[in-house]
This record gives sequence, structure tokens and C-alpha cells, in this order.
Amino acid sequence: MLPQKQRENTSCTFLGPNLPDVWVLSENTSPHTLTTGSSQSADDGHSATILEGTSIATEIKLKVAEEISRMKSEIGKFPKLVMVLVGDRRDSHRLIDVKLEACEKVGIEIVVSKLPENCTQKELLDVVSSFNDDKNVHGIVVQLPLPQHIDEEIIMNFVSPEKDVDGFHPLNIGNLAIRGRKPFFIPGASKACIELLLNHGVEIKGKRVAIIGRSKIVGLPTSLLLQRHHATVSLLHAYTKNPEQITSEADIVVTYVGIANIVRGNWIKKGAVVIDMGYNEIKDPNNEEFQSTGDVCFEEAVKVASAITPVPGGIGPIIISMLLSNTLDSAKRAFGMF
Amino acid sequence: MLPQKQRENTSCTFLGPNLPDVWVLSENTSPHTLTTGSSQSADDGHSATILEGTSIATEIKLKVAEEISRMKSEIGKFPKLVMVLVGDRRDSHRLIDVKLEACEKVGIEIVVSKLPENCTQKELLDVVSSFNDDKNVHGIVVQLPLPQHIDEEIIMNFVSPEKDVDGFHPLNIGNLAIRGRKPFFIPGASKACIELLLNHGVEIKGKRVAIIGRSKIVGLPTSLLLQRHHATVSLLHAYTKNPEQITSEADIVVTYVGIANIVRGNWIKKGAVVIDMGYNEIKDPNNEEFQSTGDVCFEEAVKVASAITPVPGGIGPIIISMLLSNTLDSAKRAFGMF
Repeated sequence: MLPQKQRENTSCTFLGPNLPDVWVLSENTSPHTLTTGSSQSADDGHSATILEGTSIATEIKLKVAEEISRMKSEIGKFPKLVMVLVGDRRDSHRLIDVKLEACEKVGIEIVVSKLPENCTQKELLDVVSSFNDDKNVHGIVVQLPLPQHIDEEIIMNFVSPEKDVDGFHPLNIGNLAIRGRKPFFIPGASKACIELLLNHGVEIKGKRVAIIGRSKIVGLPTSLLLQRHHATVSLLHAYTKNPEQITSEADIVVTYVGIANIVRGNWIKKGAVVIDMGYNEIKDPNNEEFQSTGDVCFEEAVKVASAITPVPGGIGPIIISMLLSNTLDSAKRAFGMF
Repeated sequence: MLPQKQRENTSCTFLGPNLPDVWVLSENTSPHTLTTGSSQSADDGHSATILEGTSIATEIKLKVAEEISRMKSEIGKFPKLVMVLVGDRRDSHRLIDVKLEACEKVGIEIVVSKLPENCTQKELLDVVSSFNDDKNVHGIVVQLPLPQHIDEEIIMNFVSPEKDVDGFHPLNIGNLAIRGRKPFFIPGASKACIELLLNHGVEIKGKRVAIIGRSKIVGLPTSLLLQRHHATVSLLHAYTKNPEQITSEADIVVTYVGIANIVRGNWIKKGAVVIDMGYNEIKDPNNEEFQSTGDVCFEEAVKVASAITPVPGGIGPIIISMLLSNTLDSAKRAFGMF
């Protein structure tokens, strides 16, 4: 049994309470009960709570805008984000447009630094270097993917960890992995996942979490962040045999795989919480139009889970708001406002 | 099914093959079979293979000694390790003596830099700084724990990642976490675990691994290293409810908890491999003498597992040899011998 004091401390503050790493022999052998559990069966018309993200995103953006407005009036300064774009990929342009609009709405100055597809690695490093040195720049995002002739690792490692608002620098990932350490930034998708869970009152401490997909931008950092929140995390990937055996024992299932409907209803434990971070476009055979969908077969999972994110409108909108929040945090640190 | 080429690539090179992160829909729904599985029951007198570490450690040390000898004769240089010791703790002295002896045997020059218990943080930082700058020093180990008035995090982060032969720097942990990246060093305990498994022909890819204990020196880096080797890892800790439910489904169980006999026989799946990294001293009620033991109840587990490490004589000896190997690697890098 945990000491009384620890057992009472069930509220999760952001980044998780740094509780002592003490292994206490447990005499509790009672079966696991879910906080968010449902006693209804899949056949009784049960439908999960929909974990809608748009209103949370709006709330975060409002808060960020308020803080920036106060910052401007108090010290006459504001956050500045630089997006570095190499080449002319349409999908990159689309993503940058979304970020541009979001930044402008909350009062973050955003500059898009464009380099031609055939620029050299040295030229790109020089550009990043100038932003690293520029005290007026608080966040640097190098839009991925980069052209083949440029070494992505060298570029990403070169971004100052103190301006790495995407949180992908190995120093930030390392400090996220080590409990008690404080990374400058945590990747937006992982922060969005935690925010959604906490916002809907889902307890994380002591829960079993299955994360499907171990990408460095979503699965890996999300596993590290949920571990900090004292979840017991299993990280599943392409080489996992019978992944449904693990997911069907998890209280929380997080997916970022990139295959529509890979996670079926029978992968989910009754009453579990499902966070679908996937985004896939599939063709409707009836009208040949594309539909966006996640990794989870929503129609099946919604009958089993106690709560589930929709795609679109779930985790997606929160991710962008986390980029804004990270940029604001960076500016506050630079202005000594923490 | 995995592509033929990938399926054939079952040999694990050190740090693991960096296979593409492609999720392939599997049609293989056959029950999981263990490479090292045993069909014998716990009652039939079955006894696991003992994963003895001493001979592996001797082999590694021999190889390190050979390489250093060649280095000396070819370029007249050799690796140098500095141990920084603050205060006068008996256990720290004992550990340093073990490392001293091991280094001397293989031809690594070792210097113990002693500071008084009441030295200031600034004094300690200055000492570390001088070794960071010294081109003749290839490895720096700051012996933990440090006195209360010194901020361990600041000191550990100050050790140059390129001389961090313990592998605890967040930059090295981050690069261990991110597949495809190459940390300068991997913590000795984690390397020892992999070495023992590979040496005994235990397949890691696609296996389910339960790691009990998430310390930053053993559990965390071992989970990251085994993930790089394509295991499906669950990281268990003090807040995990019913840990035996997870361990009893694992093909490989790794423990570093610090409580004697916490892992019982019924926590282990028949035919699983057990790596006991724990080291505990318990008093024999008959003669009041202390006996060293691991975290696993060996007498029970040996009847269920297909292979198990003894304590002492299992993982322990290999860990020291990994420190030597890391120091040699660092010197080779410094001398441009890679």
C-alpha cells in the first residue's frame, strides 16, 4: 500500500508531480477497476463519451492571446516564431499556412524563412544559426521533411534546445525521459494528449497505457510523458506480435500509426479511453471523395470505450495550440517572466 | 507479414539494426511461441539455464586489454578515465576500488580526483571543467551520490557528453531514445543486459519485455535500448497495479527494484528469460551473516524460467567491463581510430 500522503496526491499537475521513486510492496491484489470504466456491454447500445478537442484548443488559444496581450502592454514585447521552409512541397505550405493563421490570431509574430529546394546544408545551417543567435526569436521550427541531400539529424540537433518549440531536440527528449529533469519544451502532440486526458478528468497515475506506434514525434515522447505521469506504459510497434493482446488490457490506448482502421473494436477493453492521434485520408468508394479518418475503427470502438477522440476534431486542433503555448513559454523565459 | 528481407535479418548487431519504421498489417494470428520456451512444467524438476556473467565479463576485458595493447604499440597512446569523488562515503570508496582494479588490469590509466565533503558546487564544476577541457582525458565518472548541498543535475549535465562514459547525460539518453540517432555512450547496465541476452542467443526482436523499476541508471535506459532492438517493452514501477499480470505475459523480465525476492515464481511465464539486475543484502536469520541476493526469488523462478541470471555472478561483472569498453571507445574516437 502507498503511504497515505502519496495516495491522497492524485491530482496531476502539468508535467506530473515528481513523486519519490520508492517501490512499496503492495498487498492490494483486488482486480483492477477503471476510473472511467463502463459496466455496459458492447451490445446494449452503449456509446462512448466523445473527447472533443476543438473547445479545449480554443480555450488554450484564448489564454495564450490574453497572456501575450498583457505582455505587450506591460513590457512592450511579444513572442516571435520562425518557420524555416526548404523547397516547395504543397503539404508543407499547407501546414505552414495553418500555423501562420494560428500565430497571427494570438499575437505571435511569425516569419517564414524560405530556402530553395537545392540550397546546401551549409546555407541552411547558416540560416538556423542566425535565428539561434537572434535574441528576438523565441521559437524555431524547421518544417519536415527536408530534401534528401540534407541531413535532417544535423539540422535538428543544430536548433538551439532553448528555441526548439517542437521539442524534438535530443536534449529535450532526454530531459523528458529522465524523471525530475525539465525539458525546455515537450512535443505538441504529447502535450495535447495529456491535456485532453486531464481536461476530461481521466486519471493517468497507475493506469495501464498502450501506445501504438513509436515515432519520434508522437509515440516516443508520449510514452515518456505518460510515464512521468506514473502510467504503466507499453510501447507497441511494427514488430509487436498480437498487439491486440496488449491493447485489450490497457486502460488508455493511444495510437499514431498512419493506417486507417487498424485498431478494431476488439482491441479495446470495455470502458477504456481511446486517443486516436492518427490522420489518414481514405477514398469513399461511392463518390470517390476523400474522407479523413484516424487509426481507430471509430464505429466499433465507440461501442466499447468509455471515451474516444473523433478524427477530425479530436487531438488535432490541440496540437497547434500547444505550439503557440510553447512559443509563449519560450518568450516568457527570455523576458524573465517565469 | 514482414518482407522476406527483414524476416531474414534476425541477427542483432549492437545498438540494433535501424530497420525502417513501417507498420505492416500482420496476418499472423498464431499463438506466441518462445524462442527459448520450455514445455516442461514447474513440477517436473525443470531447472533454467543459468545465465552466468563472469566469463562474458572476462572475455570483454580481454578484448579491451588487447585493443589497448595494440593502441599503445601502434600510436603510443592509451585511454584515460577520471573518477571524481566528493566526500568520504565508504560505499563510494569500495566502488571506486573495484573500478580502479579493473582499469589497471586492462591498461586504462585511471585518476581519482578527490574533493572534500564540504567543497562548493563551484569548486566541483571547476574540477569537471578542467577534465572536460583536457584532451588526454577520455572518460569522466562523477561518483554518486553527491552531498546534499550540491545539485546533482547541474553537475551531471556539465560533464561533456563526449566523455560521459556512464551514459547518463540527457543528450546521450535522448539520442538513445530516438531511433537512428547514435548516443556517444550507453549506460553500462543496459549494455550488459543486451550483451548477456545476445551472448546466450536470446532473440529480442518482437519479444515482449517487462522491465520492473524505472531508475534513470538502469530501468529507463534499458527500456530504451531494448526498444531499439525492436522488443515490445512495458516499463513497470511503484505505481503499477498488479505488476505480476504484466510480467507473467512477458518473454523477457528485467528487474532493478532493490527489494529482495519481490519477483516471485508466479510472476514469470513458463519458459521466459529473467535478467535480475537487483543487488540486495539480507541477513541470514541462522548465523546473522549478510547474503547478497537479487530482486527475484531465485529458487522459485529457476523452476519456471528457461534462463535466469544468478545474483551475484550474473549481470554485475559485465557492468564494470562495459565501463572499460565505453572508455576505450571514447579514446578510439579521440584518436580518430573509428
